Amino acid sequence: MVKKIKFTFLFFSLVALALVVFSFKPAPEPTDAETIKRIFNEALTNGTSYSNLDYLTNKIGARLSGSMNSLKAVQWAFQAMKDAGADSVYLQECMVPHWERGDKENAKMIFDGGKTAIQVSICALGGSVATPADGLIAEIIEVKSFEELSKLGKEKVAGKIVFFNSPMNPNHLETFDAYGEAVKYRWAGASEAVKYGAVGVVVRSCSLKEDDYPHTGVMGYKDTLHKIPACAISTKGARILSENIKANKNLEFYFHMNCKTLPDEISYNVVGEIYGSNKSDEYVIVGGHLDSWDLGTGAHDDGAGVVQSIEVLRIFKALKLKPKCNIRAVAFMNEENGGRGGEKYAEWAKINKEKHLAAIESDAGGFTPRGFSSEVTPTQKEKLKSWKPLFEPYGIHNFDRDGSGADLKKLQETGVPCLELMPDSQRYFDYHHASTDVFSTVNKRELELGGAAMAALVWMIATHGL
Amino acid sequence: MVKKIKFTFLFFSLVALALVVFSFKPAPEPTDAETIKRIFNEALTNGTSYSNLDYLTNKIGARLSGSMNSLKAVQWAFQAMKDAGADSVYLQECMVPHWERGDKENAKMIFDGGKTAIQVSICALGGSVATPADGLIAEIIEVKSFEELSKLGKEKVAGKIVFFNSPMNPNHLETFDAYGEAVKYRWAGASEAVKYGAVGVVVRSCSLKEDDYPHTGVMGYKDTLHKIPACAISTKGARILSENIKANKNLEFYFHMNCKTLPDEISYNVVGEIYGSNKSDEYVIVGGHLDSWDLGTGAHDDGAGVVQSIEVLRIFKALKLKPKCNIRAVAFMNEENGGRGGEKYAEWAKINKEKHLAAIESDAGGFTPRGFSSEVTPTQKEKLKSWKPLFEPYGIHNFDRDGSGADLKKLQETGVPCLELMPDSQRYFDYHHASTDVFSTVNKRELELGGAAMAALVWMIATHGL
Repeated sequence: MVKKIKFTFLFFSLVALALVVFSFKPAPEPTDAETIKRIFNEALTNGTSYSNLDYLTNKIGARLSGSMNSLKAVQWAFQAMKDAGADSVYLQECMVPHWERGDKENAKMIFDGGKTAIQVSICALGGSVATPADGLIAEIIEVKSFEELSKLGKEKVAGKIVFFNSPMNPNHLETFDAYGEAVKYRWAGASEAVKYGAVGVVVRSCSLKEDDYPHTGVMGYKDTLHKIPACAISTKGARILSENIKANKNLEFYFHMNCKTLPDEISYNVVGEIYGSNKSDEYVIVGGHLDSWDLGTGAHDDGAGVVQSIEVLRIFKALKLKPKCNIRAVAFMNEENGGRGGEKYAEWAKINKEKHLAAIESDAGGFTPRGFSSEVTPTQKEKLKSWKPLFEPYGIHNFDRDGSGADLKKLQETGVPCLELMPDSQRYFDYHHASTDVFSTVNKRELELGGAAMAALVWMIATHGL
Repeated sequence: MVKKIKFTFLFFSLVALALVVFSFKPAPEPTDAETIKRIFNEALTNGTSYSNLDYLTNKIGARLSGSMNSLKAVQWAFQAMKDAGADSVYLQECMVPHWERGDKENAKMIFDGGKTAIQVSICALGGSVATPADGLIAEIIEVKSFEELSKLGKEKVAGKIVFFNSPMNPNHLETFDAYGEAVKYRWAGASEAVKYGAVGVVVRSCSLKEDDYPHTGVMGYKDTLHKIPACAISTKGARILSENIKANKNLEFYFHMNCKTLPDEISYNVVGEIYGSNKSDEYVIVGGHLDSWDLGTGAHDDGAGVVQSIEVLRIFKALKLKPKCNIRAVAFMNEENGGRGGEKYAEWAKINKEKHLAAIESDAGGFTPRGFSSEVTPTQKEKLKSWKPLFEPYGIHNFDRDGSGADLKKLQETGVPCLELMPDSQRYFDYHHASTDVFSTVNKRELELGGAAMAALVWMIATHGL
């Protein structure tokens, strides 16, 4: 009897154990939609991108390549990636240009041979030479295009200052399309005008808003040509200058700048990495550029992209997401006036024979994300578009646009699928390269949504390939 | 011979005439896509909504129903609709509530029986009674919900001030969804708390941003219950108050407000009309509300909607578009604390037996338009969605959401298809009902795109029905 009881007890115990064991089925893997929801919730509830941007812009500030501040930003990014939980953080050394604005920057329209004058807001374009030590004064003529300049020819241009006054076209929905058309006068205005003997150029700021803040940005010279000083005038200044040129025959213009180019400096990309679960040499990278122009504090351009990229690492760690491949956040140096950081990154990727599944940059401002542009094969584009239903609940609906980040150019040339976060672009050129690009113009949620969008896309590519 | 020449001449003349006549084929009608492109270009190039909003907010300012400013706004809207080219402009009289904030509004946490105190930012909720003449002082208790309040019961609530501290949920993509959950404490907090003997309520401001600006908004009493004073505390103040309640047993709170409700006043909706080509009694209307809260200057809420609606008229006139039905812009009075203007409009529509093809309100801020929400039949929803390809080039991609403007409620109840412009909602509650809702927070292009989106939808409905 005892035996039977024991057997019965043993039998039922085994059955119970079996039931327990079999009922402990592992929880089903979360769907991509569930993971993406967790990513967005994490960004919107516990996000650190906004406080990081506060520090970068308000405690460090402007950080043009070669400046002391840009090195402080490197140190900060290193620590911020560690704090985000990166498995490894390191620097990539690169040489960068070093241009300084100086402390003199003013301009005026001169009437009646100097009897009266009206000041206008200008700033030196990045890379410009200085004016003579006591400034430059000459008659000013206005042109709307290079064609018009060419028609005027040497006879009408020689010895004068050329004013390029080509407004951005407001009819483009995407303001970057208008920028693409207008920016050539900033980049090449000086080298085109000097061909006809101009002594200086004034370029209308690339902005769709009429205000009194000049917008800087990089300009270039041709080695074979004489270098003449180049400044940007505010959009309001451009209107006033244009009106006065029309009203005053032979109007003179004066501007004074003591900017200068110094020898190249050592600087760094900052790279933070999360190791993938399959220990492969495959990478998905996210990035923004750490350098900024010197007028504002580079909040949208491109503090936003840097803190969003660091946020991607933080989100993966906070949610304990295990990507198959390695995830990297890259804070590129020197996007604004040289692109040396992007080149250096691509160089190292080649040397190390790293396989990049994709590279995603955020360099279009910390506004509500609307989609991703891409430079990919048609098949990859279709794959991206097939993920649209996963992103639409977060207002991200546009995967059609071509293009990717400037820092990814060299990587893209080696065949890496390159993408860029596409935020709403309406406000971007109100701030771009101007003293108005500051922290207070960034909305916390808009910034956080951009970081979450990048993390979600990284998750999809790391999980499913592209 | 003469005859033959004459005949030949006549013959060839007739042939030539026929050729000329038949070659003057009328130009083909522009496609809807072409008309919509013209509408957007007109708004972005020659738009007047931004300068109108500048005037309404900066020259007139806040315009709560019943105030002198609200009547100035009526006069202004009348003239602005005339200037936009309306064929007819008229007023619709309605009686509106008249509540005034008064000139006393302050609050503090009181420690150790009054030895020390810390000020916090509050404002009276719209419609609240005043505190006693020298303010109200009582122990304060915090609750997160009505359920929690009910559990505390009379024993713990009687004689105290109740602090409703239910933050908006940041995880909703559409901030209006978070508002919808949180706003009940503002509306019903006082009438719920008084059931348990509370002497006053402090309600956390409906905002997703932590800052020191309290947000007002309408609250309601129940006629059968005692009326206790109700104020909103800034989100930063809410955090500090909550921390201090936790750290200090029996913390006391003091607030002082001398707001009051005066007799109803006469006011007006302003209606501007463009006559349709088929002289029917059919209407498509666009609208926003002219009244605003008194803390800011009602730039987003809802100056934006008013100037966009007026812009719809201007665009139709400037482009010489000939809608088949009549188009009306309506500047509704009293959306914020009564909805009397919307009721009056629906009343007149019924009396005059007007057939409304659709009514579109803009009352969610002057931000980049993302879509239109609607209260329509499934068939109408499908028709709206079939137009999506025409709107997507302008970033307008969402026609799925249900809902429409508060001013259209009564019209909607009579079966009119009602819609609302759906701008990007991320920033809205940073400004909503607070002193921060001012002109400088509105971006010109974003505002213009919203007006263009409304004009384009009006065109589609007027041309194809809904």
